Amino acid sequence: MSALYSKMTAQELIAEKEILEKRYNNFKAKGLKLDMSRGKPGADQLDLSMGMNNVEGYIADGIDVRNYGILDGIPSCKKLFADLMGVEPKNVIIGPNASLTLMFDYISQCYTHGAGDTPWCKLPEVKFLCPVPGYDRHFTILDHFGIKMINIDMKADGPDMDAIEEYIKDEAVKGMICVPKYSNPQGITFSNEVVKRIAAMKPAAKDFRIIWDNAYCIHDLDDNGDELLNIFDVLPEYGNEDMVIEVCSTSKITFPGAGVSALIASDNNIAAIKKRLNAQTISYDKMNQHRHVQFFGDADGVREHMKKHAAILKPKFDMVLRHLDKELSGKGIASWFDPKGGYFISLDVMEGCAKRVGELCKEAGVVLTSVGATYPYGIDAKDSNIRIAPSFPPVEELDLAAELLCICVQLACIEKLLG
Amino acid sequence: MSALYSKMTAQELIAEKEILEKRYNNFKAKGLKLDMSRGKPGADQLDLSMGMNNVEGYIADGIDVRNYGILDGIPSCKKLFADLMGVEPKNVIIGPNASLTLMFDYISQCYTHGAGDTPWCKLPEVKFLCPVPGYDRHFTILDHFGIKMINIDMKADGPDMDAIEEYIKDEAVKGMICVPKYSNPQGITFSNEVVKRIAAMKPAAKDFRIIWDNAYCIHDLDDNGDELLNIFDVLPEYGNEDMVIEVCSTSKITFPGAGVSALIASDNNIAAIKKRLNAQTISYDKMNQHRHVQFFGDADGVREHMKKHAAILKPKFDMVLRHLDKELSGKGIASWFDPKGGYFISLDVMEGCAKRVGELCKEAGVVLTSVGATYPYGIDAKDSNIRIAPSFPPVEELDLAAELLCICVQLACIEKLLG
Repeated sequence: MSALYSKMTAQELIAEKEILEKRYNNFKAKGLKLDMSRGKPGADQLDLSMGMNNVEGYIADGIDVRNYGILDGIPSCKKLFADLMGVEPKNVIIGPNASLTLMFDYISQCYTHGAGDTPWCKLPEVKFLCPVPGYDRHFTILDHFGIKMINIDMKADGPDMDAIEEYIKDEAVKGMICVPKYSNPQGITFSNEVVKRIAAMKPAAKDFRIIWDNAYCIHDLDDNGDELLNIFDVLPEYGNEDMVIEVCSTSKITFPGAGVSALIASDNNIAAIKKRLNAQTISYDKMNQHRHVQFFGDADGVREHMKKHAAILKPKFDMVLRHLDKELSGKGIASWFDPKGGYFISLDVMEGCAKRVGELCKEAGVVLTSVGATYPYGIDAKDSNIRIAPSFPPVEELDLAAELLCICVQLACIEKLLG
Repeated sequence: MSALYSKMTAQELIAEKEILEKRYNNFKAKGLKLDMSRGKPGADQLDLSMGMNNVEGYIADGIDVRNYGILDGIPSCKKLFADLMGVEPKNVIIGPNASLTLMFDYISQCYTHGAGDTPWCKLPEVKFLCPVPGYDRHFTILDHFGIKMINIDMKADGPDMDAIEEYIKDEAVKGMICVPKYSNPQGITFSNEVVKRIAAMKPAAKDFRIIWDNAYCIHDLDDNGDELLNIFDVLPEYGNEDMVIEVCSTSKITFPGAGVSALIASDNNIAAIKKRLNAQTISYDKMNQHRHVQFFGDADGVREHMKKHAAILKPKFDMVLRHLDKELSGKGIASWFDPKGGYFISLDVMEGCAKRVGELCKEAGVVLTSVGATYPYGIDAKDSNIRIAPSFPPVEELDLAAELLCICVQLACIEKLLG
């Protein structure tokens, strides 16, 4: 059953295909409607935070959180995030319900007002480095501002640093956007060496900015999670404090639709961002900040809470990995990472087959993330990468969806091999 | 006591001044610490909405409001605002906790991507018309984007339309920002004729945009409130649907720090804004939208709620107006409007005296809105306008603060007259 497809004869492949088609048609007959497209927490995960609605009182740090004021967040909420992220509260701004907005607004600020130099809108060209595969919404932000995206291959320990160090010699390369821990979609955590090499970079552009989207900073699947070096501990060695803008949020800790986000940056960057914020808002939602602080108590409270998420998520990841292992390993048609946290499993199938896998899945009622979405401009040149989001469907549904996915991968590859 | 100051002899003025100085020093001895600077609701107003915290359930319109998704707001919340504002739900986007952010983000969008024409950042100059006195935070937004602000005088029925019709012949004049009902700070509501004249404008700039900040749309002080013509009922007659971006919020209905905002616009503008929003966020806080809908039930529920605010605010406005009337009328040194709603009383004192009034008040422990803030660039050329915000202090404190303010106005004017 686990022979390399490439070594099989046409006859053997056709025989294999017939078996797979029978299984595929059986699935189709079930009329499934399953969704593995987005990294949405399941309803049982959301239930974990319902106690937040019982938080009473509205005075926090002596402030009536119901009223106007306090641009950068209530002190207790800034402290909570500072403790979680290993920085000082003065380097934290509490944001709206989505760190995506913090990233968009920061790029927008660079575009309209620059990052200490010429506003990017006044430049003939602005380029960003994008480790791939990556997060489609990052690419959407950059594309919105006409920023040219350059693919950087991901390796097992982070982005290809040789390539990055070459590209940053170009002054038009103004930044990089990445998920340093449990990268979306591969679940790769940048090694200490990679973090240090990033912190030590000397880009030609003095206003080079790295959007360090630490979306999965404490999102381990079990006690055996990855450790990410705190880049803000390393940057000062190289005088590069201003190079990194870090963001995170409780979207996948409490509620995706009603969490709290945070931005971490150097004193200079915080001052520049606050200047813009002072025109953009009077304050973000302080009642929600207060609810979060009261519900968790402190950083340890958040970490304890994450174990409950892990208990729900781990069996889902295991379920998908079990199917991948059982059906795809040893056939030379697919490879994947076994992530220790985050929200995705990244599956690389035989070149030229990913789109077809997506079509086959869709036809049988299982929606995957649009194939190509993990690359800038939606273009996966190898047509190879598939992002699997196991968090939302219940585990029984996932069982079916993952099996179907594996059938589709095999079918698509055989179709390809048979030409 | 109510002789015109201008008709008084120097001796009479000096005698008057001595009496006022005695009163002023008595106030100073009290060591007051009162704030009439910002339009903040009082704590008793915030208490009116605490029931919102008891809202349970998280499924609205079949959507789990805790999770990702629904870019433009849950349908029931869109309907609530549509009913309140007299438009269709399809023309409503529910925003974050502050309409200020909706305005900033829209101007930012025009700056980076234009409003159907050249992005404003690519133009040598962009100008906006600003009815004055006006809202300082509007001016801060425009100034942030380097938009040149042009003062337009307010008349008793709205902005000086003759001036506006002249200015819009200039293609660099790209818009206007205004508060059409209970204007900040004068409390003037644009007359039907003015609204119609605005709706009928033919600006040289095809991408002319009016930011119609309807912050006080239902904020009457009693049953005798002003009626503002719905500009979206008039715009189609002139094919000008795309000219107006209206915003409003529950900042002064529920919680300033944790309300819900809304943007109302034409189909074309909604589509353009959603395109940007799709890069900026996944959704605004839907749990808060749900809380608001459940708490109010419908538009009538909101209107009933506003009567409770009026019952708290009316005595405060009356208190200030009583002092103004008693101490300042008939002396030829000050004029003011008697607003039927909104959050401010606008006091125009003898030219060249407003800053001095602010200083005298501050010295005696009463903080007013920075004099000049009601004009673009903080420049009130006549040094005449003072914005009084009576909402936040308890009525007993307001009694003291308003009396002190009146003393300071008289003192400053006498100082000026005595040279």
